[in-house]
Amino acid sequence: MSWTLGPDELRDLARGAALLGTGGGGDPHVGRLMVTEAMRRHGPVTVLDPDEVADDAFVIPTAMMGAPTVMIEKIPRGDEAVAALRALERHLGRTADATMPIECGGINSMIPLVVAATTGLPVVDADGMGRAFPELQMETFGVYGVPGSPMAVSGDHGELVLIDTGDDNKRMEWLARGATIRMGGAALIAEYAMTGAEVKRTAVPRTLSLGLSVGRAIREAREQLRDPVSALAEALAPTLYAHLRVLFAGKVADVERRTVDGFAKGRARFTSFDGTSTLRTAFQNENLVAEVDGQVRAIVPDLVCVLDAESAEPITTETLRYGQRVVVVGISTPALMRTPEALAVFGPACFGLDQPFIPVESEAREWRVAR
Amino acid sequence: MSWTLGPDELRDLARGAALLGTGGGGDPHVGRLMVTEAMRRHGPVTVLDPDEVADDAFVIPTAMMGAPTVMIEKIPRGDEAVAALRALERHLGRTADATMPIECGGINSMIPLVVAATTGLPVVDADGMGRAFPELQMETFGVYGVPGSPMAVSGDHGELVLIDTGDDNKRMEWLARGATIRMGGAALIAEYAMTGAEVKRTAVPRTLSLGLSVGRAIREAREQLRDPVSALAEALAPTLYAHLRVLFAGKVADVERRTVDGFAKGRARFTSFDGTSTLRTAFQNENLVAEVDGQVRAIVPDLVCVLDAESAEPITTETLRYGQRVVVVGISTPALMRTPEALAVFGPACFGLDQPFIPVESEAREWRVAR
Repeated sequence: MSWTLGPDELRDLARGAALLGTGGGGDPHVGRLMVTEAMRRHGPVTVLDPDEVADDAFVIPTAMMGAPTVMIEKIPRGDEAVAALRALERHLGRTADATMPIECGGINSMIPLVVAATTGLPVVDADGMGRAFPELQMETFGVYGVPGSPMAVSGDHGELVLIDTGDDNKRMEWLARGATIRMGGAALIAEYAMTGAEVKRTAVPRTLSLGLSVGRAIREAREQLRDPVSALAEALAPTLYAHLRVLFAGKVADVERRTVDGFAKGRARFTSFDGTSTLRTAFQNENLVAEVDGQVRAIVPDLVCVLDAESAEPITTETLRYGQRVVVVGISTPALMRTPEALAVFGPACFGLDQPFIPVESEAREWRVAR
Repeated sequence: MSWTLGPDELRDLARGAALLGTGGGGDPHVGRLMVTEAMRRHGPVTVLDPDEVADDAFVIPTAMMGAPTVMIEKIPRGDEAVAALRALERHLGRTADATMPIECGGINSMIPLVVAATTGLPVVDADGMGRAFPELQMETFGVYGVPGSPMAVSGDHGELVLIDTGDDNKRMEWLARGATIRMGGAALIAEYAMTGAEVKRTAVPRTLSLGLSVGRAIREAREQLRDPVSALAEALAPTLYAHLRVLFAGKVADVERRTVDGFAKGRARFTSFDGTSTLRTAFQNENLVAEVDGQVRAIVPDLVCVLDAESAEPITTETLRYGQRVVVVGISTPALMRTPEALAVFGPACFGLDQPFIPVESEAREWRVAR
């Protein structure tokens, strides 16, 4: 059933989307402000459940692309994503019936809402990553046969780039990344145009409403003085993201971060509150792996989420800093994202990691973490 | 009057075009081989004098883009420039009546001939630089009001990029350079689509036939055991490029060359045969300036051409090497390229050079060069 998303729900959605962004996907404060402004001007947004999208409807997903370290400073003017959508419509000779996120994240769950508010189009409650990933070929859309091309990239000087690499989504990413770097390190995109039938077949469903519900669960737990991480685990249990594991609790001891090749790449080290244990993470925009005392506890495509120890507010990789007191959780991804064909596109090897994928819930041992 | 260009004239044209390329514009051997192959398959090419292009005809120029150091190794398969032209036609919803070079050069006078032979389109005897320049905004087309956008960039994996920066040709260059770098450092392009009336108003006319005639003049002088540089000066005298000055004769003493930011950038030092005099050049794909014993003798947009001392065969910047025995000449560019608005786009300051533009023929002193 379709539902209406208004400005009052944006704080919860931004929080939940940032959590699903697993360290990437953009800053939730920036994302929320952008949608708030768009809704103030144009009104609320209609969200369509994927099941109610007509099979022959035409859906054009929209997003922001770039290093989160840049995106947090280079905030879009507001109309660039609409310009990307319109450019792709003109190129394809077909107008969109809806837009959709390509990933979850503090900004990238929000860009389609800005587009929806501005254009009056509905937004489909689904996305192509079920989390955030750093590269455009890392989409369930592409894994299950929808090409990303042609795509549109739109910059803040009104410049437009259209890219067509046929069914080679990795080459599309390579060219789009180059355009984004030359546009200042962040740009707005429209890609993976597809039919409603393809949405149903390839998208990770209901990730906007999931973001909203987990964001709300965290807030309500705080208000009720309950443990927000437990509330989060309870909220996730009946969903496609059924398993949450608390991996670590401690302080950020070191962050090594560079904006390079259009990405924010780096590593972080955390020390447990009692000083006996060390967590190491590696990230490319998003957290890729969590190793506790040399043992992998969670790895892509499962989610590794760094949360504030008290409030469970998600902390993105670009805002990680020394001394933050955190809880780190691993969350299982939907089965759609763990198939061999999915792991071939966004499994550990795709990020240069040596370790195999091990589902976060497969560890027999239940970690007891002192908090 | 239109004329037919066949394979027998390509050696002369390649030589003359490389000379007008002023060190850049691509290797004449590579360019000639490409056209020879296209003509072998498809037949000769019709060349249109700009005066006989209908005012409402639609002309799409085509070219290769990239660092000459890459272009000499990464030779196009052959259909990429046609793919760029067709992509731009589809984007604009209008088919081309002719193609045209954007610059003179061993490759870039030839690419439009490959396109013409392959498609059956005629090629207009004119171009947008009257020489070669390293950047796409450096076109008389743009100087006199024709936007470069939208443009198409085509790579050897079938990938296509369309760029639209409105009337900002410098931003177009910036984005196209980025795409070209990501396509491996060389790509084929179609840009500055314009009407026949715009060709007549903005193009440097008859540079294909000029390339052919100066290339022929050099060859015939060799065959007749005359001085080919004098023959070149005589061939140029009645044209828009009236003034040739011999600047230097000597040996290449040092070449410093890097492929950086998508360009071949560097400096060269030459020592006179008697060891008393030094010439220094700087280049960005093309030669930009020639300083003899610390005095500027020729500077952009005038041509600085390094020729083999015996044969007057042009030597491109990517093939300059220690010990080559050379004559260096300066050649005046057409008046169209020396206006204040032209110098604002491709005068010395546009290349970071401190010196003002001084026409090569303005020096009172006639240099006596020992050869």
